[in-house]
Amino acid sequence: MKSLVVSCLLTLLVTTAAWGETTLKQAQALFKPVPTRPPVLAKNPATPAKLELGKMLFFDPRLSASNLISCSTCHNIGLGGVDLQETSTGHGWQKGPRNAPTVLNAVFNVAQFWDGRAKDLEAQAKGPVQASVEMNNKPERVVATLKSIPGYLPLFKKAFPGDQDPVTFDNVARAIEVFEATLITPDARFDKYLKGDQKALTATEREGLRLFMDKGCATCHNGVNIGGAGYFPFGVKENPAAEVRPAADLGRFTVTNTEVDKYVYKAPSLRNIVLTAPYFHSGKVWTLDEAVKIMGSAQLGISLSPGEDEKIVAFLNTLTGTQPHVTYPILPPNSATTPKPLLQ
Amino acid sequence: MKSLVVSCLLTLLVTTAAWGETTLKQAQALFKPVPTRPPVLAKNPATPAKLELGKMLFFDPRLSASNLISCSTCHNIGLGGVDLQETSTGHGWQKGPRNAPTVLNAVFNVAQFWDGRAKDLEAQAKGPVQASVEMNNKPERVVATLKSIPGYLPLFKKAFPGDQDPVTFDNVARAIEVFEATLITPDARFDKYLKGDQKALTATEREGLRLFMDKGCATCHNGVNIGGAGYFPFGVKENPAAEVRPAADLGRFTVTNTEVDKYVYKAPSLRNIVLTAPYFHSGKVWTLDEAVKIMGSAQLGISLSPGEDEKIVAFLNTLTGTQPHVTYPILPPNSATTPKPLLQ
Repeated sequence: MKSLVVSCLLTLLVTTAAWGETTLKQAQALFKPVPTRPPVLAKNPATPAKLELGKMLFFDPRLSASNLISCSTCHNIGLGGVDLQETSTGHGWQKGPRNAPTVLNAVFNVAQFWDGRAKDLEAQAKGPVQASVEMNNKPERVVATLKSIPGYLPLFKKAFPGDQDPVTFDNVARAIEVFEATLITPDARFDKYLKGDQKALTATEREGLRLFMDKGCATCHNGVNIGGAGYFPFGVKENPAAEVRPAADLGRFTVTNTEVDKYVYKAPSLRNIVLTAPYFHSGKVWTLDEAVKIMGSAQLGISLSPGEDEKIVAFLNTLTGTQPHVTYPILPPNSATTPKPLLQ
Repeated sequence: MKSLVVSCLLTLLVTTAAWGETTLKQAQALFKPVPTRPPVLAKNPATPAKLELGKMLFFDPRLSASNLISCSTCHNIGLGGVDLQETSTGHGWQKGPRNAPTVLNAVFNVAQFWDGRAKDLEAQAKGPVQASVEMNNKPERVVATLKSIPGYLPLFKKAFPGDQDPVTFDNVARAIEVFEATLITPDARFDKYLKGDQKALTATEREGLRLFMDKGCATCHNGVNIGGAGYFPFGVKENPAAEVRPAADLGRFTVTNTEVDKYVYKAPSLRNIVLTAPYFHSGKVWTLDEAVKIMGSAQLGISLSPGEDEKIVAFLNTLTGTQPHVTYPILPPNSATTPKPLLQ
């Protein structure tokens, strides 16, 4: 009798260990840890000079017409790379149409913006600068402003040593891309787990991971960014509430003009997801628990039990990595010829 | 004949040297270098925990009703501690009434705000948070917000270890004061000069200093902050243009309700003055050259010659110190109970 109990316990242990091993293997096949060093940008290689310039431009509100809004305004590195707003507030206190995606790990996304209309961070950086509801500026005015600031010229020269006239809108975007590519968050507990340390996650978190894979979440949310790799309809099985998926925002349809792309969005990265409420492109959902429930019904056609969604949320809590260490840049001063802020 | 020339030259050299020595002595009697370490705040001693908390709060836009405006918005450490606006833009894109004074070296001012209505940085920090045209928040809402952010409680406990209930509006202001007191800019070239290195200034800059003292500028602009130490009427000899000194802004009169305080303002610090255009409480003057000319006519009743104002501006260019080195803080995330941003 005693040997039977021992035998049963042993079997259970072995099974649990095997289950653990299987879960890890399956996770390793689906996800990748955030690398500890920024990726190399083939067409825009980083140099210390370009990186430093990019950081300055990222924080410089003089890229906006008002001189009040910088990239950092909506992509606050201290707040998970977002602005904690439903949709961003820009020039003249106007509300933008969508929730600001995080800049953290954005370099690993297949493309930028919710609808993927910018192929990379360089292209992305040019958008908000010109959007009338965001920074409301014009490329030529950005260049005139930067050229009027004497301290910027040597920095552009150093960052773009081959260029005759280095202060260009393209180079502004290139420098910002290089800086943004460094805004990665390695060493999340989940990444330690992916590297083989099963104890990096608690039992509940591992069960959450198991559910995340078994229920189908990982169909769209996989890879290094646990998302950010492809486009999917929002409402595969069931349309979300109109507040959460406003009828007027047709998503990727406006990029491709293709019927099947109506209400299609890039699956967002779930990296650091606990830092970046509110959720979805509408920003109408403030808790991760509610967001997970909506995903279950809208995308998978299932009702998650309270225990299940809690476990998935517990797993999502393991995706917060080491946040970027950034020294606040000192920006070169205006000159008498610097264009004045435009507030209207 | 030869000995006469030598004698003359020697006399000239000795006279020049003596003139230089006199100028230095006179300057040392009028001004003081910015210390290399922050001053001790008698009633609010700094600790590493209080300093770190203060830095976080300084950069946290959740002190504002909208969650969009932080202390750093108008007091950008990367831009000389100001916002480069005529008058600041706040909640709902409203224009504030006066130009944002720099936070750099503000700890050395006799009091805070243009009219001195806050006796220190602790009192000052409470103003913009509540001003409807600035951050438009209420103390109780600030406290409710901070209490709802789980990561803040241990930081307040560590910063204010004696307090039963450390998350208070007063402690928010105290922590911010401790951080702001570290935002000092030592080692300006003028400070090296004051410490005895006469070659730290060029001949033109020393002539500018001489004029600054001889013409009377140093009557109001003296001490460690070269200003910031007392209140003076704007328009001692001649009223400035109505655009520069708007009739409706009565200055310190609104604080003291005393007739002689009409159009009286705290003389601003001239530290880092080349970084902080536009000038005056109205922010209507964009170049230092014009500002110096206006000071000459309005305060001293003199017309500075083009050579003279250029020399004074050259001197003012030596007042830029080493700007603060600040690591951008990572802020603790919201919880489900954190009050939502109020944009209206």
